[in-house]
Amino acid sequence: MTEKIKRAAFFISDGTGITAGSLGGLLAHFPETDFEQIRIPFTDSISKIEDAQKRIVNAKLATGQRPVVIMSIGDTNLASELKQVDAYYVDLFESFIHPLGRELNQTALTRPGVSHSIKGANYGSRMEAINFALGHDDGMTHSGLNQAQVILIGVSRSGKTPTSIYLAMQFGIKAANYPLIPEDFERGSLPPILEGYLDKIFGLTIRPERLHSLRSERRPNSHYASLANCREEILKAETLMKKIGIPMAESTSRSVEELSAIIIQHMKN
Amino acid sequence: MTEKIKRAAFFISDGTGITAGSLGGLLAHFPETDFEQIRIPFTDSISKIEDAQKRIVNAKLATGQRPVVIMSIGDTNLASELKQVDAYYVDLFESFIHPLGRELNQTALTRPGVSHSIKGANYGSRMEAINFALGHDDGMTHSGLNQAQVILIGVSRSGKTPTSIYLAMQFGIKAANYPLIPEDFERGSLPPILEGYLDKIFGLTIRPERLHSLRSERRPNSHYASLANCREEILKAETLMKKIGIPMAESTSRSVEELSAIIIQHMKN
Repeated sequence: MTEKIKRAAFFISDGTGITAGSLGGLLAHFPETDFEQIRIPFTDSISKIEDAQKRIVNAKLATGQRPVVIMSIGDTNLASELKQVDAYYVDLFESFIHPLGRELNQTALTRPGVSHSIKGANYGSRMEAINFALGHDDGMTHSGLNQAQVILIGVSRSGKTPTSIYLAMQFGIKAANYPLIPEDFERGSLPPILEGYLDKIFGLTIRPERLHSLRSERRPNSHYASLANCREEILKAETLMKKIGIPMAESTSRSVEELSAIIIQHMKN
Repeated sequence: MTEKIKRAAFFISDGTGITAGSLGGLLAHFPETDFEQIRIPFTDSISKIEDAQKRIVNAKLATGQRPVVIMSIGDTNLASELKQVDAYYVDLFESFIHPLGRELNQTALTRPGVSHSIKGANYGSRMEAINFALGHDDGMTHSGLNQAQVILIGVSRSGKTPTSIYLAMQFGIKAANYPLIPEDFERGSLPPILEGYLDKIFGLTIRPERLHSLRSERRPNSHYASLANCREEILKAETLMKKIGIPMAESTSRSVEELSAIIIQHMKN
């Protein structure tokens, strides 16, 4: 196996650096390089620019490769000053915002973006959705369930909680989640409280081996975590969900981001 | 007040669409336009491209403006096919990934990014951090507190929970949070359990009027929510944190994204 080339990737912003940092995802298209990702937010003065430059220069010395710098700095003077040191720069203002401004026939605001501030598009509803998800985790309460935009169901440890939280944090979607338990399988029906919300329910399922491993972390050597019990619960849960016609996704090999994208697509149909 | 110009902004991806969608933050630099943001993930076949094209054409008809399309589609044929309909395209492969590949002297992988899959850089540690944050919310348990990378403290409803969850979900940082309560102020010291972790503690504070409003949603007309009590608790909490030398940030006008960026900067110092 050849050793990967090390290179630093900086995300330098006059705001939180979240928009610039999110482009870090694109670096995964270059698996031969081992990127060290460094975020430098709030870079809004000449002394902070100089600090950032020192770190870029040091990273070049340390790796022998010129760093990649993804930058979002609205002040043109600060932005040009930064670029005085050798690096491969991706300037979001130059390559994205200003060209878009020409298309829109508008001049872009150059102060730090408001998108990740409390003035951002749906900040209030995202925080409300987080509180909702936490308050409606694991069937904790039925009160306010009618406000849920989606209700995730599935056996214990099938991925409902982190998916609910991601839907809330990222998209402001109010997601409740409700466990399917052996009593439901015996009865052969959903928990009665959910029956009025069939069109909002989405099922998560998981492979038995993975569930066994997840549950073993929590309660090793228990009946709950045993592979036989995991197999049985999953078979019964899937049978029940299919019988009722609940849409389902497998969480075994999917991230909360992927599950959320699938759930949102389903919500729109 | 002039009416804002309506325009559609599509984020079309062969993966989750999260990287492309995160550039939506940059649209906030154009406040004169009212963007309707539409995500179309998993666009990986010719029939899905055709569906997306129909939606672009319809959006142009509905708004009278050609839509902005931010796209991340690795398959060159599908990407060129999409661009057959009139829109302002920002093609992340063309404008970002392929040029970066030339700098790196590598050919980019063109399959959907793995950055938001379970194979993404730190997916496992992010999920572990989420479980940690949920298990260590509001001083729920002391067990495992030594694993915390940061411990947020502050009065009830000062923003500790959503900030802890954001630090975990976005950065994989294990964040516990611990409420400061009247008993702590009487004693004039931090909760004893926290005394061994002084270098990990970060304080959140908030303006009394805002706290009053947040607490009133939860328990209207209570002593807990009264403005006088909010003022007193905040004064005492700030005095205590200053006395001990705990770094602090005000959550009143800051988003969880901004608070997290501040906390991470502090962790590095």
